[in-house]
Amino acid sequence: MPLSSDFASTLHAIFGDALALNAATRAAYAYDNSRREALPEAVVMPTEHAQVEALVRACRAQRVPLTARGRGTNTTGASVPVAGGVVVSFERMNRILRVDPDNRLAVVEPGVLNGELQSAVAPHGFFWPPDPTSAPFSTVGGNLACNAGGPRTVKYGASRDNVLALRAVAGNGASFRAGAPITKGATGYDLVRLLVGSEGTLALITEATLKLVPKPSALRTLRATFADVGAAARAVARIMAQPVTPCALEFLDDEALKLARAHGGEAVPEAGALLMIEVDGEPDQLDAAVDAVTRAARGDGLLELRAAADAEEAKTLWAARKALSPALRTLSPDKINEDVVVPVGRVPELVAATRRLAEKFALPIVCFGHAGNGNLHVNLLPRDAAERARAEPCLAEVFDTVIALDGTLSGEHGIGLAKRAFMPRALDPGALALMGAIKRQFDPEGILNPGKLLP
Amino acid sequence: MPLSSDFASTLHAIFGDALALNAATRAAYAYDNSRREALPEAVVMPTEHAQVEALVRACRAQRVPLTARGRGTNTTGASVPVAGGVVVSFERMNRILRVDPDNRLAVVEPGVLNGELQSAVAPHGFFWPPDPTSAPFSTVGGNLACNAGGPRTVKYGASRDNVLALRAVAGNGASFRAGAPITKGATGYDLVRLLVGSEGTLALITEATLKLVPKPSALRTLRATFADVGAAARAVARIMAQPVTPCALEFLDDEALKLARAHGGEAVPEAGALLMIEVDGEPDQLDAAVDAVTRAARGDGLLELRAAADAEEAKTLWAARKALSPALRTLSPDKINEDVVVPVGRVPELVAATRRLAEKFALPIVCFGHAGNGNLHVNLLPRDAAERARAEPCLAEVFDTVIALDGTLSGEHGIGLAKRAFMPRALDPGALALMGAIKRQFDPEGILNPGKLLP
Repeated sequence: MPLSSDFASTLHAIFGDALALNAATRAAYAYDNSRREALPEAVVMPTEHAQVEALVRACRAQRVPLTARGRGTNTTGASVPVAGGVVVSFERMNRILRVDPDNRLAVVEPGVLNGELQSAVAPHGFFWPPDPTSAPFSTVGGNLACNAGGPRTVKYGASRDNVLALRAVAGNGASFRAGAPITKGATGYDLVRLLVGSEGTLALITEATLKLVPKPSALRTLRATFADVGAAARAVARIMAQPVTPCALEFLDDEALKLARAHGGEAVPEAGALLMIEVDGEPDQLDAAVDAVTRAARGDGLLELRAAADAEEAKTLWAARKALSPALRTLSPDKINEDVVVPVGRVPELVAATRRLAEKFALPIVCFGHAGNGNLHVNLLPRDAAERARAEPCLAEVFDTVIALDGTLSGEHGIGLAKRAFMPRALDPGALALMGAIKRQFDPEGILNPGKLLP
Repeated sequence: MPLSSDFASTLHAIFGDALALNAATRAAYAYDNSRREALPEAVVMPTEHAQVEALVRACRAQRVPLTARGRGTNTTGASVPVAGGVVVSFERMNRILRVDPDNRLAVVEPGVLNGELQSAVAPHGFFWPPDPTSAPFSTVGGNLACNAGGPRTVKYGASRDNVLALRAVAGNGASFRAGAPITKGATGYDLVRLLVGSEGTLALITEATLKLVPKPSALRTLRATFADVGAAARAVARIMAQPVTPCALEFLDDEALKLARAHGGEAVPEAGALLMIEVDGEPDQLDAAVDAVTRAARGDGLLELRAAADAEEAKTLWAARKALSPALRTLSPDKINEDVVVPVGRVPELVAATRRLAEKFALPIVCFGHAGNGNLHVNLLPRDAAERARAEPCLAEVFDTVIALDGTLSGEHGIGLAKRAFMPRALDPGALALMGAIKRQFDPEGILNPGKLLP
């Protein structure tokens, strides 16, 4: 439904030149990395909190859908404006307001890129833990909206674990602050963590106080090859059952390895499966830590375990790992990239089950991901219409398997459009009803990101 | 208001002998460690989830207030049944259902004592981070309700940071599960962390899946004495601004030290202030870590910094530190024990401000606590009627000071009755309104712990 001219005037009064109604701009904000698409009626680009508040109030008054967007790297359709209305792009609210090393925090606007933040805090000896593959071009606001993770999550936690305070505008038009620039608090309900992962369905974040972590000065990258995926998965479980937690524990199955070799060449080994293991710490502590992880990695089916020969080899391995997601898209434009999670001790069962499902549905499935958290990207790769038809029931069985293993639908990508229909499999009716009730309180007219997350 | 005989029959049908209506039992469940008191009409002691669900539904149907209780160690009155009705004591839901070292988790009922849990997981090489002074006799359910912390929080987080999943009954009578036994997730709103710290006002927790942490095998205790409180506070800020995080960083001012000496004797030094610093890690890493912390602790006003001579001295120091809270009660039965938090870099300002307030109001104030989190127990110690009268405006100024320093009302004790009236100083109207809206959704009749937390 096109916007009324009255409403367009209201938007113009709030945003001036930062309002776009032309078809080309609207088209540029119609999609995200899920490759789903829906045209908004308008795009606005606030530069300050007051504009966001005025925007929400105007949309609420006219019942106009309002979808928040960082840089559209989301893979679940969470930033696609399926109900039309207004897209609010935070790309111009991109200031780093404060880096405060003494209190281990940074205050940023939501449009700051993850990579920009890391560059700003690195000279102080700190980093912000979330490190999604999209870090160079994804925003902190988007990271928070989806509870983004990445390899480092295994040791340092995801977005939700690394935010201290937020400023936001709820769907009811009320501005509020939640949390404080402190590392501990018991003052009322935790609205901060409620907003993180809510995918823009409850409130629009306009400022975030992020927890920074001191950057260990030393890092070692190990590569361990295994005869088969089961052996690698069992090594993952052993590594995570001992005290030294690696700062990355990535798994690649044999198919993922073949693809990675196409990108990284000889540096990527041929094997049944690969674990990339990183251990960080202070230089005089690192040998002992590496020894502990190495001991745990050893076991039946280990082919070779060695440190990356040099920084160059480590860099190549990571580049190959990070190239997997786009490479799979080339193989199958219709790839379904899930990021299911199971308890880490059950990773071997999950890996075995995906193998069985690939056979049962005669469908290529490639697995890789953050095995230290039990978070695997299970990629279904249909190549033709018949395979596309089988992908859907196969995916449903992947989810059922994960839930039977005490896991859940998403580790770090979120629910968006892609997994919304599966929510009742993962959550019981009581929990879903409470989530719906919270949604109605924050956003009584249901204007914020309609059609997402909740079934 | 006495319970109707119909309602009493309903309770009897659910609980049989685990229902108490006699005056003696009711009196025993009327108070908590806040020394506030209010008589419930009935006390029930469930042994299973289904009874809790039936109880909430019965109370909801009759609009009977229902206050959850662990072992009553709370200091804010959060477990005092100020509106009468039913106290539900979880002391008999005290089973450790599962210890799962491979997945670094334990599943417990809410009535398990913190200390019992630690004993059960220690043989597996793990601990659960929250370690309130009350650990030997406080329950995990109570720890979760109040987001309990303790000295270890500075490195390992508080209760909210160390829980993976919950089973609960909301005030609307709906049972639900939230979270999963995994370390990472982006599947809907975070109901787990919403319940933690909600003080029994939203739902009753009947089962918790707790995150366990590997116990480092080595620990060193340092004691650093300072000429004055300001010098110690500045050392705290320096220690927390460098990469090696101690696993305890406790502050005692001169008055707290005098009291601690009365308990611990010669082992407790005389000084203007003391920092107790603990560093943990693997044995071959510990020297370097201790060196880093030691370097940061050095500065103007440091008198002496040394490792505890032996385990015995460390034990004495801790026993003296943990004796402070009851010792202060002896000095002043009407002590007001606050646990305010400020950004750690502002601890020096907070300490200076409490000194000024003690002078302004001519009131003894003793400060000690978890300085590494900026979490200080500011104890107002009125000794007579005149001092009691001055304590109230003094406390209000303590809170105003804390909020002006970007801090908040409570680090680990919660709000309960004691700080409810101050919530509008700490939270803005938008945030308070959203909290109230959440409360009404979980508990439409307002039966759960009425009169607590929200103003």
